[in-house]
Amino acid sequence: MREMQAVAVIGLGSMGMGVAKSCLRAGLDVYGVDLNDAARQTLAEAGAKGTSAQCTDFADQLDAVILLVVNARQVQAVLFESGLAAALKPGTPVMVCATISAQDAKAIEQALAQFDLPMLDAPISGGAAKAASGELTVMASGAASVFERLDPVLNAVAARVYNVGPDIGKGSTVKIIHQLLAGVHIAVGAEAMAMAARAEIPLDLMYDVVTHAAGNSWMFENRMKHVVDGDYTPTSMVDIFVKDLGLVADSAKAMNFPLPLASTALTMFTEASNAGHGQEDDSAVIKIFSGIELPEKDPSKKGA
Amino acid sequence: MREMQAVAVIGLGSMGMGVAKSCLRAGLDVYGVDLNDAARQTLAEAGAKGTSAQCTDFADQLDAVILLVVNARQVQAVLFESGLAAALKPGTPVMVCATISAQDAKAIEQALAQFDLPMLDAPISGGAAKAASGELTVMASGAASVFERLDPVLNAVAARVYNVGPDIGKGSTVKIIHQLLAGVHIAVGAEAMAMAARAEIPLDLMYDVVTHAAGNSWMFENRMKHVVDGDYTPTSMVDIFVKDLGLVADSAKAMNFPLPLASTALTMFTEASNAGHGQEDDSAVIKIFSGIELPEKDPSKKGA
Repeated sequence: MREMQAVAVIGLGSMGMGVAKSCLRAGLDVYGVDLNDAARQTLAEAGAKGTSAQCTDFADQLDAVILLVVNARQVQAVLFESGLAAALKPGTPVMVCATISAQDAKAIEQALAQFDLPMLDAPISGGAAKAASGELTVMASGAASVFERLDPVLNAVAARVYNVGPDIGKGSTVKIIHQLLAGVHIAVGAEAMAMAARAEIPLDLMYDVVTHAAGNSWMFENRMKHVVDGDYTPTSMVDIFVKDLGLVADSAKAMNFPLPLASTALTMFTEASNAGHGQEDDSAVIKIFSGIELPEKDPSKKGA
Repeated sequence: MREMQAVAVIGLGSMGMGVAKSCLRAGLDVYGVDLNDAARQTLAEAGAKGTSAQCTDFADQLDAVILLVVNARQVQAVLFESGLAAALKPGTPVMVCATISAQDAKAIEQALAQFDLPMLDAPISGGAAKAASGELTVMASGAASVFERLDPVLNAVAARVYNVGPDIGKGSTVKIIHQLLAGVHIAVGAEAMAMAARAEIPLDLMYDVVTHAAGNSWMFENRMKHVVDGDYTPTSMVDIFVKDLGLVADSAKAMNFPLPLASTALTMFTEASNAGHGQEDDSAVIKIFSGIELPEKDPSKKGA
């Protein structure tokens, strides 16, 4: 087996930057690709072997490619439109970390196979802080040999690696089902807080009750704090859940499966986006409810 | 102000028994009322001053009444059909801990006022274990003087007391909004796990991913374990959420407020109940999904 030493991280956003730096800390040779000059500069200063705005630079030197772009469209563009797939050495594993549908994952696998490039369907979760500390959760599917080959990379970036088996698409499906829960939890948190506002219950009291009781969720505790504070500076935007719950809907349709709750949550986020809140924090889905008064940001507080 | 020494606990189910014993530990004189012989016997052995199947026994000796019956219908029966309200000394505070609608709470307040009996609208949460240890959460509304008068009782039974203000109905509304979240979290947990089953994702893996990530909720972690284990022995039954989400719907209707998600969850629990699962654990709402195979209980495990 070839050594695993040189890896390219494509997409140096908050997640990709963390992954790239985690690989550096693990002693790998890291090449970073992003259109953003400042991101490339940051990674170069952290010790990257090379950075570029072009996917195909360094392609012949790589032992693995890690894709941290936003969606399936970008994965396709990077691999097949830029010429990267054709430029990689045959056998180079491609780890696709974007949140995409199972169908897209399978289509990408088949296109990569034309170039003799094996894929790991490897969505991640954990956020920017866990990416930075190399403690992501990876929910992955692919051939056992690809897991083995990518072991140094997985060790560098993840605290938990779930192996969902050999079928490409299963990793993506686990991530998508996770997003189903996350999205509905935000939407129902908004529904509950909006009802409390309508009933003239103080929202800080409602928040305190729920976060100390069995009605709590990770998303309620994290996101409804933004509603209590009246601060919709995005942690993650409404439009991300329009996309992710759209993937949930696509996946469910492909397996002829009903989504009584997630389909409604998708409608709620889509409505919030159309009302002009797409770039606000996802908790702004609460703004679809009328006839209520929500807390406004205290201008004396940090970040105002 | 009269001393607070003699209290009656009416309804000695798992919650009422815990409340009664917590009052005993706090040095109060406790009278217990329940139709169930065994429950009365248990409380008598724990040191009750008296027990009876009749609500009106001991009525003239009481400094407070605590109602831990199941619904508004039972509250009405205990107070007004049994003759209890007429038999209590004027001014005796009545603490109503049942989960009821704001409208029912207000109707009960007005009926009690005919007998000069002040009410605390005081739903509880925390489950049987917290009831037993005197660590319930009480979300209450009522006059400041009633909170003050019941302070020894609240101290005895609760770890947290939320004062939602003087308006009867507000305590009930906070509880109902909490139940909205709890019910939707169970229903969406079921939707997600059913989709995972459909995709042939191992449910124990899916459970492990979610419970270590941002898609988690208290209810997912607690109830979807029952699905993974295939064990629908009730912690709390499907029919309880048919009732509680029904109260959510009644309350929303009274305030002209839409419920995009909770209304769907109510339909899901109602469907599960009609399919014959009403007396099973509330996680059995997953059985409304067809075309999937769910784990079955391992007969070698405890409780099989």
